[in-house]
Order: sequence, then C-alpha cells, then structure tokens
Amino acid sequence: MDDISRRSLELHERLQGKIEVVSRAKVETVEDLSLVYTPGVAEPCRQIQADYQKSWELTRRSHLVAVITDGTAILGLGDIGPAAGMPVMEGKCALFKEFGDVDAFPICVDTHDTDEFVRTVQLISKSFGGINLEDIAAPRCFEIERRLQEVCDVPVFHDDQHGTAVVLAAALINAIKVTHKQTGDLRIVINGAGAAGCAIATLLVHMGFGNVILCDVNGIICEGDEGLHAGQEALSHVTNADHEHGTLADALKGADVFVGVSRGNLVTPEMVSTMNEGIVFPMANPVPEIMPDKALEGGAAIVGTGRSDFPNQINNVLVFPGIFKGALQAHAKRITEEMEVAAAHAIASLIPDEELSPTNIIPSALNKSVADVVAKAVADHVE
Amino acid sequence: MDDISRRSLELHERLQGKIEVVSRAKVETVEDLSLVYTPGVAEPCRQIQADYQKSWELTRRSHLVAVITDGTAILGLGDIGPAAGMPVMEGKCALFKEFGDVDAFPICVDTHDTDEFVRTVQLISKSFGGINLEDIAAPRCFEIERRLQEVCDVPVFHDDQHGTAVVLAAALINAIKVTHKQTGDLRIVINGAGAAGCAIATLLVHMGFGNVILCDVNGIICEGDEGLHAGQEALSHVTNADHEHGTLADALKGADVFVGVSRGNLVTPEMVSTMNEGIVFPMANPVPEIMPDKALEGGAAIVGTGRSDFPNQINNVLVFPGIFKGALQAHAKRITEEMEVAAAHAIASLIPDEELSPTNIIPSALNKSVADVVAKAVADHVE
Repeated sequence: MDDISRRSLELHERLQGKIEVVSRAKVETVEDLSLVYTPGVAEPCRQIQADYQKSWELTRRSHLVAVITDGTAILGLGDIGPAAGMPVMEGKCALFKEFGDVDAFPICVDTHDTDEFVRTVQLISKSFGGINLEDIAAPRCFEIERRLQEVCDVPVFHDDQHGTAVVLAAALINAIKVTHKQTGDLRIVINGAGAAGCAIATLLVHMGFGNVILCDVNGIICEGDEGLHAGQEALSHVTNADHEHGTLADALKGADVFVGVSRGNLVTPEMVSTMNEGIVFPMANPVPEIMPDKALEGGAAIVGTGRSDFPNQINNVLVFPGIFKGALQAHAKRITEEMEVAAAHAIASLIPDEELSPTNIIPSALNKSVADVVAKAVADHVE
Repeated sequence: MDDISRRSLELHERLQGKIEVVSRAKVETVEDLSLVYTPGVAEPCRQIQADYQKSWELTRRSHLVAVITDGTAILGLGDIGPAAGMPVMEGKCALFKEFGDVDAFPICVDTHDTDEFVRTVQLISKSFGGINLEDIAAPRCFEIERRLQEVCDVPVFHDDQHGTAVVLAAALINAIKVTHKQTGDLRIVINGAGAAGCAIATLLVHMGFGNVILCDVNGIICEGDEGLHAGQEALSHVTNADHEHGTLADALKGADVFVGVSRGNLVTPEMVSTMNEGIVFPMANPVPEIMPDKALEGGAAIVGTGRSDFPNQINNVLVFPGIFKGALQAHAKRITEEMEVAAAHAIASLIPDEELSPTNIIPSALNKSVADVVAKAVADHVE
C-alpha cells in the first residue's frame, strides 16, 4: 500500500464517516419538544400539504442535495458495488459542504437495473432539492440522467459528465485568451467517448468553439459508424464536420486543443508537435494521457491536468458546489446548458485578464470563494 | 392558528430545516483533498470491496439511521403525502441526534404501493446502519416492516409500533411495583388495534404480564372474529384468554390496566371506577382517552399520558434514540423482542425503587442520560 493510501485509510478509520447529520434545533425544554416535534410540527406539515412550494422554506430541501450512485464506475475501480462506493460518495458530500456550504447526503442504490434505479431515485427525490448522480457507468448514465430529469421536479446532474465539461470549458475559455486563438475556428480533439468525453463534446459544440472531433479506442468517431451508443450517435451528427476517419494521431494533426478523458500515456510529444500551438488538457487520473513536461517538450502552448502537483489543475470541485448552490437558491427544476455555460464563464472570470498566463488559466481547486461566484451566475440563468 | 402552531411555524421558517449535513473532514490543503477524495479514497473503497464488514468502520454507517415514511399516517393528520410529512421526519431526526447522538436522515418515499415501497427501501438500505420506519398507516405497516426485515441486513424498526410498546412496558413495570400488583395475573385492556395497539399487545403478551384484551371501535377482539387484519388475527390467538365479547366498558370491569392508543374522551370516570385499582394510561394525543383528573376521580391508582403537562409522560423519545444507538454499536442485524424487553427494563430502572410513586414511574422525556442506559442494555442483548 502506498503512502497516500495508508494515510487515507488511517484518516477514514479515525473519522468514522466523513459526514455527520446534526440537529439545527435545540431540544432542552418541554416547549422545545412541542415546537420541534408534536404537537407544533403539525402546522408546517399542513402548510406544505396546502402549498408544496412551502417545502422549500419549511424543510431542509433548499440546502440539500442527494449524491447517488449505483456503484458501477467508482473512480478507476470499476463496478465495486454500492457499499464499497460509499467512501467516494461521502467524500463528495464533504466537498459539497466544505466548498459550497451545500448539505449533501450519500445514497448508494443496490441495483444494476436501469428501470429500478430510476424508479428508486424518483421515489425519494422529493426529499431533496437536487440530485447529483455520481460514478455511474456509461452508457447507462445517459439514459438514467435523461429519464430521471423527465420524472423529477428537481435538477438531476451527473457530475462526471457535466461538472467535468464545465470546468474544462472554463479552462478552455482562458487558454484561448492566453494563446489568442479564435473561438469558432478551433479544431478540438477529445479522446475518450464515455460519460465525460461525450458531455465535454456536447458542451463545447453548444458553446461554438469550433470543430470538435471525438475519438475512442477505435480512433475518430464519424457519422455512420457502427456500434456507437445513443449518446455517441447523437454527437456524431454535430462533431467531426469533415467526416474524417483515422487514429487519434491523425486527429491531432493541426488540432488547437487536445482533451483527454481516457487513460494514461496515450499521447506522445511527437503527436503534440503536430498540433497547432496545442492547448493540451490530458485529464486522466492519476496518470495523464501525456505528462506535462512531455507535452511542453512537444511544443504545447498550455498544459492543464487533473493533478494538483502541476499548474492548471482542472478539477470539478470548482463546479458542482456552486452549480447546485445556485440551482438550490433559485429552486431550479433543472440545470440547463445555459446555466452550465454561465458557470464556465464565471469560473474563468475569476482569473483577471492581467494575471492570465500559460500556467495560470484556472482558479485553485482549493479556492473556496469560487462556489459563490458560480452560484450567482447559475441562479441568474435559471429559466 | 393557535399559539403553539404559530410559534412552531416561525421556528421552522427561521431554521430552514431542522437537520444539517456537515463535513467531519476538513479540506483546506491539497493533501486534505487527496486523502478525503481522490486518489486516497480508493483505498477504503478497496477495503470494503474485499470485506463488507469494513463499511462499519470506514463510513458513517455505524452512526447512521434512515427515518423513512410513505407519508400515509403523519401524526394525526393522516395521509398528507411525503413532502408534507417531512417536518415530522426532520423533527424525529433532530431528536435522534439530540437525545442519542445518533445521526438520522429523513427520507420520504413517494408511493402507496407496498411492493414498491419495500423494494425502494431495500435498495438504499446498505447506505445505513438501521431503518426507522415512521408514520406508516396500519395494516400496511406490519407487512412492510416484516418484509423489509427479511430482505435487509440492518435492523428495521417501526417506531410507532415498537417504540410505543417499549416505553409503555417500562411505565407498566414501575406502575406494578408501585401498586404491588402481581405480574402474570393482570387483566390488561388495550383500546386501539392499529400499529401501536397491536405492538403493545404483542410485547405485553411476550413479557407475560397477564391476560391482554385488545379492543377496537367494535369492542373486544375475540378469536374467530370476522374482518380482522393479519396482525389482529394473529393476536386474537394469544389475547382474550376467556373469549370474551363486549364493549370497552365491559372489558374494563375488573381490569388492572388500561392502555389507550385510540382517540380522546372515550373513557369515563365511571368506567375507571369498575377497574381494579386501575393503572390508567390514556395515551391519545393531544386529547387523552380520559383526562388525568377524571381518571383519578374514577379511582385510578396511577395515571400516565402522552402529554408533558401531566405527571408520567409516556413518550417514545425515551426509546428510539437508545434502541438504535445500542443496535448500531453492536452492528445488530435486527431488533428482537429480547432487545425491546431489555430496553423497557433499562428505562424502568432509571427510577430507583425508593423514588417510585404514583406520579413518578418513568424518567422525564427530556432526560438525555436515558439513551446511553438503553443502548447498553440493548447492545448486551444482541444475539
């Protein structure tokens, strides 16, 4: 066991859970008991019964998000089941509170059946102000999110998809400023067509950055390819405008941007050297698609990874606390692409133009002032 | 709106939720982030994957109970739905934490379908160390509890049934001491054959107090009666030993104990006067089956109600925090009748014999030392 694993295990043993449910109400006297519980509590119940919207002010809903998984894609560990996935869910909840002052509660649903998962989450969704889906394998995550959003009246947000897309977009906005590239004309190559890759492609297309080319293990994805899942198939119509075929190396020739959400050590300095002053975001964890020094050796103009030990850490902790904080404040029913775009611009705006540089395009993942800025932008864009 | 309703509403508006989910882990540095979340968190996940029992020490499970309802029997308000039931659930969770230092999280399941409710709770049960069912209508509550306990590997406890039964048994243990009645020979009349009445009857029969006679709106329930639900039918074989028929008034003649879990003002002083130095526990809320002064006027030896403004308040806040605390400490898979009996004796034992009197048979509902005593007794009786 390596040092970080050993120390994390010790921390978990000591903490006995990374979250805690506490009482906001003191109960010391007979009167306290009668106000917090019976008979007084009947009145807020009646108020909500008469007007469902009152649940936002009389219960915890407007501060509360569920962090829900089926345990099928826990970190890089794969399908390890709901109980074993709980440390990740609790960790996510701790980050929600620490970075966004959003209450988040972890729930692992013990089924691999999509219908059953959707129904279970739907039936408990009224206890929350939002649903953050976490570590659900692709392609089922796409169907689950879509169906849940149809049946729930609170936002359903698969963070592995959209949180990653928003933080990547924020980094890209500033990287473009630094490199003086032209939005709209960019050739953008995304390697990895799972949950994160598809969401990044969708958002970057929506934001009009340019020609997005999505690659998977078989190379460039093109309209008409066999064996695409529904999410990839939909994307094939709006990406790869010139119907190119080929390998990742082919795709990278002349590309302005590389985004990696695949696995380590797939990209060589030589491949980077064929790019057009490449903005290189190899985000695979813990080993990026290309290490930053190698990318720079290949001529990359800017490099950002998921890691904290290199400049430009692209971490979605910059996104999800603020996105949900804003959505909860506005009692949003869903998180739209407009809200995501607003969040990306808000994050990017936190680095003043005069401070932007190739090694400073995105706020620190530890910057706890980000969530409020994101929340305001998101709340302002609720329909 | 009466004064207590108005003030409770104000409190709820001010608090914005009676519970809060906080982080037990600080996240200030890059190292904190790597231990609480990726990459360090992978190790506790792997440990639980290899040994499910590790979830008790590496996540919050061993301190965490779900408080779950379908909203069908919220207080005296009836079937007001899951959203409107949430203030009661949050109140219950606040009491769990304030009285037992047990984390409790409220979940309202939005279905009236028993199969669907059971399946939903089963699928999320591995996220918790115990399930407290709350305010579910009879008779479906019996089937739900039984089926859930069969499929869950954590305790499933319908507090409206068993919490009430345990606290009533505790009061009865001490009332018998005060009145020098003989356990085993008692004639005990329970009015109300819903969730609480059936559970009380079951526990008092199990504890061997004597001949328990269960009444509902049609009077005494007797073996062979038509129209009994499954719970009542099962009880009909072990109660009413002499196969009596008649009204509640008939049942009370010569009775040693009256337990009311029905509705207000059903019992007259004249009916009490036909009892044998009656121990009278009219627990309907807020209006008892007979007011204490009237019961004493009828010759009652001891009176206890659910109300805090009279002596001998019989409130299950004395039970559920400690029951679950003990069950969690012992990693119990279920809460057995033996554990319930141990809890009842533990509560009763908190009034030393020399302090027992007709107006002092049960600890104050506000006594926060009760839960630890109950927890120890319960943990000592886990199989």
